Amino acid sequence: MQKATLSILGCGSALPTHKNFPTSQVIEIRDKQFMIDCGEGTQIRMRQMGLRTNRLGHIFISHLHGDHCFGLIGLISTFGMLNRTAELHIHAQSDLEKILQPQLQYFCNDLPFSIIFHTINPRKNELIYEDRSVSVFSIPLKHRVPCCGFLFEEKPRDRHIIREMIDFYRIPTWRIPKIKQGEDFVTEEDEIIPNAQLTKAGDKPKRYAYCSDTAYSEKIIPIIEGVDCLYHEATFMEDEAVRSKQTEHSTARQAATIAMKANVKKLIIGHYSARYINQNELLNEAKAVFENTILGEDMKVYEI
Amino acid sequence: MQKATLSILGCGSALPTHKNFPTSQVIEIRDKQFMIDCGEGTQIRMRQMGLRTNRLGHIFISHLHGDHCFGLIGLISTFGMLNRTAELHIHAQSDLEKILQPQLQYFCNDLPFSIIFHTINPRKNELIYEDRSVSVFSIPLKHRVPCCGFLFEEKPRDRHIIREMIDFYRIPTWRIPKIKQGEDFVTEEDEIIPNAQLTKAGDKPKRYAYCSDTAYSEKIIPIIEGVDCLYHEATFMEDEAVRSKQTEHSTARQAATIAMKANVKKLIIGHYSARYINQNELLNEAKAVFENTILGEDMKVYEI
Repeated sequence: MQKATLSILGCGSALPTHKNFPTSQVIEIRDKQFMIDCGEGTQIRMRQMGLRTNRLGHIFISHLHGDHCFGLIGLISTFGMLNRTAELHIHAQSDLEKILQPQLQYFCNDLPFSIIFHTINPRKNELIYEDRSVSVFSIPLKHRVPCCGFLFEEKPRDRHIIREMIDFYRIPTWRIPKIKQGEDFVTEEDEIIPNAQLTKAGDKPKRYAYCSDTAYSEKIIPIIEGVDCLYHEATFMEDEAVRSKQTEHSTARQAATIAMKANVKKLIIGHYSARYINQNELLNEAKAVFENTILGEDMKVYEI
Repeated sequence: MQKATLSILGCGSALPTHKNFPTSQVIEIRDKQFMIDCGEGTQIRMRQMGLRTNRLGHIFISHLHGDHCFGLIGLISTFGMLNRTAELHIHAQSDLEKILQPQLQYFCNDLPFSIIFHTINPRKNELIYEDRSVSVFSIPLKHRVPCCGFLFEEKPRDRHIIREMIDFYRIPTWRIPKIKQGEDFVTEEDEIIPNAQLTKAGDKPKRYAYCSDTAYSEKIIPIIEGVDCLYHEATFMEDEAVRSKQTEHSTARQAATIAMKANVKKLIIGHYSARYINQNELLNEAKAVFENTILGEDMKVYEI
């Protein structure tokens, strides 16, 4: 079975620390890569992780705070030096293009590839991207500036062939792809063999939700209900709940509460304030509410 | 004796590697800090090195290629979050201000400190900064875009008091600072005690030259003649001399040749192309010409 993975390049917050770079991650799903956010040092982490990004076509930016987008210009510049030719699509609020274009013109005026900007409306929960195998939806979040998360949904995977039945009916190879997609088989004698006799249900499509930066907001629950993996920010612990509210961030307990109420399968926390040297404290606070919580760490790869 | 030090935050070239971030370094001299260049990830390296920069007032940018300035916006933004109040002076070609201002207005519109831009003419060898104890001169370099290096010169240090003579003539403490600066002492009997009897020469003022990025250029030799420490780029080895010339960079041998011809005391090489996994090859090539060559390394501190 094809895995869907999440590579965390950085899961710190605004101030980088020994452990954590600012936010960036790469989702690999159905042989494609998608980047979410691109804080300073993203391209450095890619190198450190040995993460090759030749299947990266789309970057999604949650909001326009520096720790989520300052790495873009360096990444694009490096793609240029590496002679990338494939189009690069950037999905972000419209201001990003205004800020980035003058830099691109100055520093990257001879890029061997095109950059295509797509405007996101962070206040809407809507489909912002889809291809043959994946859909991406925006998730309105509650932050000091307009901000949205992203829901990645795999489209239904192919059904699994039952090899013995294929042999039994001597089905030619060229018919297999359609049968995997659910088509019945018609024999030379015009007998219809229902697809259910030839195949078993395919692997369950994966769903991944990214929610950072955000204050506690139950409005997102119906959108992320039941996802296989939720990445939710946990900038603070409950003892900093006041500061958390002021800055419109979440505590670890709040992240876990959202995970529990949305019945997600797994929660990964991140976007830790630099004040927490021992991040296990954050993990323990979350686990008390939602047991299947994992501490997000830079340079680790997680199965979705 | 007060040391002058060079902290290398990054000495890679355009493409970051496992070992090397793009260019940035901090000179500490007479209790002040000066930054040269500010590639992406500079603020991250500062954290990783535990380098506190509360005495950093001036940043010098050699040229406007991304690997020498993409870290500025993140660094400034972080200084803001840390409530820096001291003015920050940036010495660079005028285009930098044009590129940076829109970003500052968008991302850092409530900085608690002022940023003051000073325009450098990279084609001139001239004094671009001085204070009580240090002078900084531009060094015109030869690169694909206008580019200059920097020469840091300490002003003469105080002379060393000869303790026994001070005691012998019962010189009051309040006279000592002036005597350290070379003044004679006049006794109550109007006897003039020449300064040479009371003091020994102070420590020799330090001189540090930074030359990156540049093709081989003997024009810089008279400017950097005899410096205590020369940092010179060595992007390539001689076997890539053609590529080196095309891109207007230097080979390790060329860096060493400049060091030898300029009679510098010590050469530190850096700005290595990402192709060199074993950088000792670069070091050996340089050492064959100039023995006192040191391999620049990220996160190391060197005495000037």
